Amino acid sequence: MSQQLIQSIKYLIHLSEEEELFIPTLFNRVSLKKNEYFLQEGKVANQVAFVEKGLIRYVMTRDGEEMHTYFSCENEWLGNHESFLSRQPANVSIVALEPSVLLVISRENLQLMYDTLKQGDRLGRLIIESVFVESLKQVASLYAATPEERYQEFFEKFSRLQHRIPQYMIASYIGVKPQSLSRIRARIAKGN
Amino acid sequence: MSQQLIQSIKYLIHLSEEEELFIPTLFNRVSLKKNEYFLQEGKVANQVAFVEKGLIRYVMTRDGEEMHTYFSCENEWLGNHESFLSRQPANVSIVALEPSVLLVISRENLQLMYDTLKQGDRLGRLIIESVFVESLKQVASLYAATPEERYQEFFEKFSRLQHRIPQYMIASYIGVKPQSLSRIRARIAKGN
Repeated sequence: MSQQLIQSIKYLIHLSEEEELFIPTLFNRVSLKKNEYFLQEGKVANQVAFVEKGLIRYVMTRDGEEMHTYFSCENEWLGNHESFLSRQPANVSIVALEPSVLLVISRENLQLMYDTLKQGDRLGRLIIESVFVESLKQVASLYAATPEERYQEFFEKFSRLQHRIPQYMIASYIGVKPQSLSRIRARIAKGN
Repeated sequence: MSQQLIQSIKYLIHLSEEEELFIPTLFNRVSLKKNEYFLQEGKVANQVAFVEKGLIRYVMTRDGEEMHTYFSCENEWLGNHESFLSRQPANVSIVALEPSVLLVISRENLQLMYDTLKQGDRLGRLIIESVFVESLKQVASLYAATPEERYQEFFEKFSRLQHRIPQYMIASYIGVKPQSLSRIRARIAKGN
């Protein structure tokens, strides 16, 4: 099964040969069409996933308006950990932006992976540390950055993805209207 | 030394008697006066801490304006994990709002605790999971909540602390000017 997944895990912890064979048995490979849901706002997240291929958007809908809070692509972990860990309904939907292939693991199997792998809890700690840092950066940016700075941050963080994400989604990630994004782009282009 | 710390750890993992004696040797007890820094914006965070007593504020300063992004009190862990994990300069200061007593652990000793305790990595995973969930809630709220909703969230989250935090700090946490906070409070009082 997925060498990408195994490689990504081996980057963080040591795996025995038995463990390399065991891990894939815990995951299901799931294909999503464009706009198909991995998680729907209001439901409890009972699984997380590793993105083997594709691009995924995190979107909150309020008063009919869509706000994009994150994007995940190949070789990244995805999920709504807030709902997953607290078992409360999710406040965000997770939706395929491109046709995608996910390796999905249930709550029970994730716990089994933590318990069974010799360094399972270390793996969990290291994965959560890395997504936590991204979340903290976002909090700081939402408090203190100007729209221009948030646009620059978007490009640094998602530079490889910029041509795969529509402008109106980028605008909603930054927290501005699409017209404002055009003005920001024009100002930055003029400044360069 | 700190029974609070040991109790809080035993709530998450099993500790042997030897481990209960070992853990306190990894921490230093540090007293902070009001307005004394645990971490200064622009410096690298090389330690995290457990709050034994007191109240701590997280504050970012931009163009001379202070924005409060979080508050930590007794029996909670504190630190700027973004700087601690990435070894980049912190974008936030961590400052005593009341005279406080912290149990401080260095990067090296934290690693030693993860490596030495039988369930050390599990402890790390569980602590980070809990602070990560708080961070995710804050991202969602900053994107989608109105100031009224953020005020209500503040009261749910920090209800025990409301009389210990000045109004202007609450206003900056919510992301409004102090005058707006007064109007929000008046509207909510009228609604009840």
